[in-house]
Amino acid sequence: MAGGARSEDRRSVAQKLFAIAEALEGGRRLTLSEVARRAGLPLSTTHRLLAEWTEWGGVERGDDGRYSVGLRMWRLGVRQPTARRLSVLARPYLDDLLEATGEHVHLAVRDGLGATYLERLSGRDPVTVISGVGAKLPLHATGVGLVLLAFAPSDVLEAVLAAGPVKYQPETLTTEPELRAQLAEIRATGLSRSVNALTPGAFSIAAPVLGHTGQVVAAVSIVARTDRMDEPQFAFGVRMAARGISSALGWHST
Amino acid sequence: MAGGARSEDRRSVAQKLFAIAEALEGGRRLTLSEVARRAGLPLSTTHRLLAEWTEWGGVERGDDGRYSVGLRMWRLGVRQPTARRLSVLARPYLDDLLEATGEHVHLAVRDGLGATYLERLSGRDPVTVISGVGAKLPLHATGVGLVLLAFAPSDVLEAVLAAGPVKYQPETLTTEPELRAQLAEIRATGLSRSVNALTPGAFSIAAPVLGHTGQVVAAVSIVARTDRMDEPQFAFGVRMAARGISSALGWHST
Repeated sequence: MAGGARSEDRRSVAQKLFAIAEALEGGRRLTLSEVARRAGLPLSTTHRLLAEWTEWGGVERGDDGRYSVGLRMWRLGVRQPTARRLSVLARPYLDDLLEATGEHVHLAVRDGLGATYLERLSGRDPVTVISGVGAKLPLHATGVGLVLLAFAPSDVLEAVLAAGPVKYQPETLTTEPELRAQLAEIRATGLSRSVNALTPGAFSIAAPVLGHTGQVVAAVSIVARTDRMDEPQFAFGVRMAARGISSALGWHST
Repeated sequence: MAGGARSEDRRSVAQKLFAIAEALEGGRRLTLSEVARRAGLPLSTTHRLLAEWTEWGGVERGDDGRYSVGLRMWRLGVRQPTARRLSVLARPYLDDLLEATGEHVHLAVRDGLGATYLERLSGRDPVTVISGVGAKLPLHATGVGLVLLAFAPSDVLEAVLAAGPVKYQPETLTTEPELRAQLAEIRATGLSRSVNALTPGAFSIAAPVLGHTGQVVAAVSIVARTDRMDEPQFAFGVRMAARGISSALGWHST
């Protein structure tokens, strides 16, 4: 509950402002007290900082008094260099992959210990997946995440293990030996094939996207119902899409 | 210049943080001193506040030490309810309009005294226009902006006039009688036909998009070289697209 006897809040003004923005990250429109509760701030502080956010335009207040992310935040966000460039360049390849397979197509980048989804195209008769555009999902539990983890600096895996990877399904790999073996296979084959650890009954094939210097900058995947997964064909399609996007980013295989 | 003998900066911490974000709005990667100069803040303050932004993820610092908008801002921005929903619903209609005409297709919403571009699809042999996705352009000087202004509350026109509308080209309407006459015509015909005031040699046809309660929530336009503007055909196309998007938003004409 908000406004309780909170002994001391050592957060800086900036951190409190960011906590308010995070409260709105889910995309729902929230009341003042909902924002306060989620941000862990007293109503008075929340009200004052929301007023600063709304004056600037980073937050909007609707006619019903509820708050949501504002257009100014959207305008800033679309200027994010990686997301913007990748989305624009990748879109035709992702469209082709969707057209060829009719299954879910995802593009994600690593964002700390998570995979952030830049694009998510829906298949015709899709399995239910929870990865909307802008969602951030755990690296160890998604096909794109495993690819990004496989090619990340080694301290990223260590941080994932230290954080205690959640076992979402019986098939989710969470121990160090399991994960190390899986990541080695991804590096060897350039492809991740896995039961989708977040979505029961879904299978995922993912491949890395390379930037112009050859580093892995993103991952592309198909997610399909296990019984519909045509593995050789989908693997070929994912590889082709990843290669096309990599070329568009300026990567040349030698 | 940054760090000069600044007598007193009465901005709140929040306002200083926002000034730093705004410095990055152009999308270029900036050095610390460039951010400080644009935000009008001393280097020390800029450094400290940039550290808070980057720790949260709203700003990113590249390997070269330059700053840009961070993935977290992008992730928040895509949760902006209006932009997200409008873009997704409008996209097929905008694609059709591009396919049918081969010219620039724009979708914009009113954002204070500006028109913010949610979508901008490029024509095959386009005129040069400056309206990228996320750009915010003056209401009185763009086709979409004039439509949005025509259907905005009357105090918006008053604020535009009070701000002193800029005459970008000889054809740009800037006086109160000119603008009032133009806006009345737009309201009467449901269509704006104008020389694009920001782009020499370009012509714009724009129409309003209605939300489920019948209020104008966005505008869609075609921008084409004046000598290629097929006015009846393009007006038909813009109307069709605007009507399609309105229906997708839940509006029903009676």
